[in-house]
Amino acid sequence: MNTKREIKDLVLPHVNALHGYTPGFQPKEGGWAKLNTNESPYPPSPCVDQSIVAALGDSLRLYPDPRSWPLREEIATLHGLDVANVIVGNGSDDILNLLVRAFSVSNKDVAYPFPSYSLYPVLCAIQDSSVVELPFDREMVLPFEAIAQSTANLLFITTPNAPTGVGFANDDLRRVLESFDGIVVFDEAYADFAEENAVALLAEYPNAVVTRTLSKSYGLAGMRVGYGLASAEVIEVLDRVRDSYNVNRLSQAAGLAAVKDQDYLLATVGKMKRTRDFYYDELASRGWFTYPSQSNFLFTEPVNGQGERGAVIARELFEFLKSRKILVRYFGGHALTESFLRISVGDDDQMLLLSETIEQWMNKE
Amino acid sequence: MNTKREIKDLVLPHVNALHGYTPGFQPKEGGWAKLNTNESPYPPSPCVDQSIVAALGDSLRLYPDPRSWPLREEIATLHGLDVANVIVGNGSDDILNLLVRAFSVSNKDVAYPFPSYSLYPVLCAIQDSSVVELPFDREMVLPFEAIAQSTANLLFITTPNAPTGVGFANDDLRRVLESFDGIVVFDEAYADFAEENAVALLAEYPNAVVTRTLSKSYGLAGMRVGYGLASAEVIEVLDRVRDSYNVNRLSQAAGLAAVKDQDYLLATVGKMKRTRDFYYDELASRGWFTYPSQSNFLFTEPVNGQGERGAVIARELFEFLKSRKILVRYFGGHALTESFLRISVGDDDQMLLLSETIEQWMNKE
Repeated sequence: MNTKREIKDLVLPHVNALHGYTPGFQPKEGGWAKLNTNESPYPPSPCVDQSIVAALGDSLRLYPDPRSWPLREEIATLHGLDVANVIVGNGSDDILNLLVRAFSVSNKDVAYPFPSYSLYPVLCAIQDSSVVELPFDREMVLPFEAIAQSTANLLFITTPNAPTGVGFANDDLRRVLESFDGIVVFDEAYADFAEENAVALLAEYPNAVVTRTLSKSYGLAGMRVGYGLASAEVIEVLDRVRDSYNVNRLSQAAGLAAVKDQDYLLATVGKMKRTRDFYYDELASRGWFTYPSQSNFLFTEPVNGQGERGAVIARELFEFLKSRKILVRYFGGHALTESFLRISVGDDDQMLLLSETIEQWMNKE
Repeated sequence: MNTKREIKDLVLPHVNALHGYTPGFQPKEGGWAKLNTNESPYPPSPCVDQSIVAALGDSLRLYPDPRSWPLREEIATLHGLDVANVIVGNGSDDILNLLVRAFSVSNKDVAYPFPSYSLYPVLCAIQDSSVVELPFDREMVLPFEAIAQSTANLLFITTPNAPTGVGFANDDLRRVLESFDGIVVFDEAYADFAEENAVALLAEYPNAVVTRTLSKSYGLAGMRVGYGLASAEVIEVLDRVRDSYNVNRLSQAAGLAAVKDQDYLLATVGKMKRTRDFYYDELASRGWFTYPSQSNFLFTEPVNGQGERGAVIARELFEFLKSRKILVRYFGGHALTESFLRISVGDDDQMLLLSETIEQWMNKE
């Protein structure tokens, strides 16, 4: 027939209405202090390069292990779990997406405290899932009452939270699990920088899931490796909706080498935490309100040389830094975030440059 | 509350009913002639290793280019298209999944001729999409009437087809496009081994999509790189449902190096086609019915030493070969496939070993 339908009439209505996730700006040329996407300022373990080189050549013509089995085994050992409690993803975003696809749809709500990781609403919009945002207040205590009253099927808790960096005690997470009977996902992208983590809770709660990424503490954002930990029953469900070859050969090799080198992880995480705490003190000494961070970033409320703060001031500093080739992250449009900037913890040189540039901004005019 | 819901009551009903895709058997130890998953018997271009090594080190800590832009540009140039007509995926399976998520759901059917690529029903089941299989007969001519009468929103045509290897002329594909006004996906995983391909049709039909993989002809199955070609409008829709960092740094580097080295591609594809045609003649000379192949595999109907053929005979040869560490693929359960074996084109040594082993099977008892 010649009367063709328009493409937009073929697209699902909820996909027509989609706005994609906006990843942090990735400059193409060098010379930037890149403190906007919480990447590690340090390269991954040197074992990673060695493992990748060893995996090159003829074997690239062969499909990868469909289940990333050796990596699952290593992760299970690391956390004292059984391999049946582990799934590996193309980044932890892959695991979050599988959770949305297995446990939510238009009449099965997804809930999450707000603000938290801005990918959740995007994944839900792609799935046409209905979303219930449970607002934090400025104290950033978990909204326990709203969680207990929620009838959602799936609940995401970013812990430590993003973009605030605030960590939650396991007693708080246990309180969530005791009051909510859907699937509870503890998105622990930043757990290696935190004082506690939820892994020990998994044995008690078959509806609890922990997700982790190698993109932050392990310095492997370029390789897209993340994982999920849960009861064998939940892992088996996620494996059903997973792409059969979701993680390629070199990502599996890189992930395995990185997870095995815990000495390197502890050393680099230790450096980042020292830099973070030093810089937190510096911001505090400026009189800038900054949330105590259990992550590799700081969420701070800038105050200019005239003592002013707020959305306009934060946005102005964001632009000032960008004009000096320093990238941080600004989350406008919401009262709890719009007067703040999120600053990833860089290396000492980057943080010194940032301090000097903030000083210039304070003193201009 | 203490009355927890069961996990199976939290899982979406259609996910509870899922059976995952069964990937071809991947032996862990060496010594196998692996002719079961249509991998190339030859390694990828030597430029691939060089590009990967050049991308190692510090840059692995940084997120990849979210849109795989340089690779999109190179693919656009290769096909004489604009970069807006290209999307890159974590294997072409990723692109097929995006198509299902953007264009199908329970009341928007997906149609495909049967038999074809066995992943389509799996992707549809994950999306809870309704499926309409349009049966081939033994001639393997496209089911034009059924296609013209279909009200599906999305149609997959594997061309050349799998598991038969039969190629379709562009005149046939044009006839499909003239009679069907939904999205038409030409899944061209094996197009580099074929006489024609559908890329030239894209300019005329904004509802046409071509998908390609680097897993077969380019020898890069281990890196998971595939792509889609379509109107800018369709690509923009697919980008909305795509994971923002779907292809990692080393896969982008590998894909770019492989696509740039067209001389190597042509040389290796030429070798595989010669081996394929030589082996086709050998099977024909045995009197085994074999579909003319425009792919890197042969779909053949074994006849034993007593002149018998059929499902039992095909299955018996499959097991005989496996016991001699030769892996091929058997698709039971359907009259059009169950008396056949699918044999990937290997290197000369593997094909000689296969011939000798078939000879042993013919002469046993």
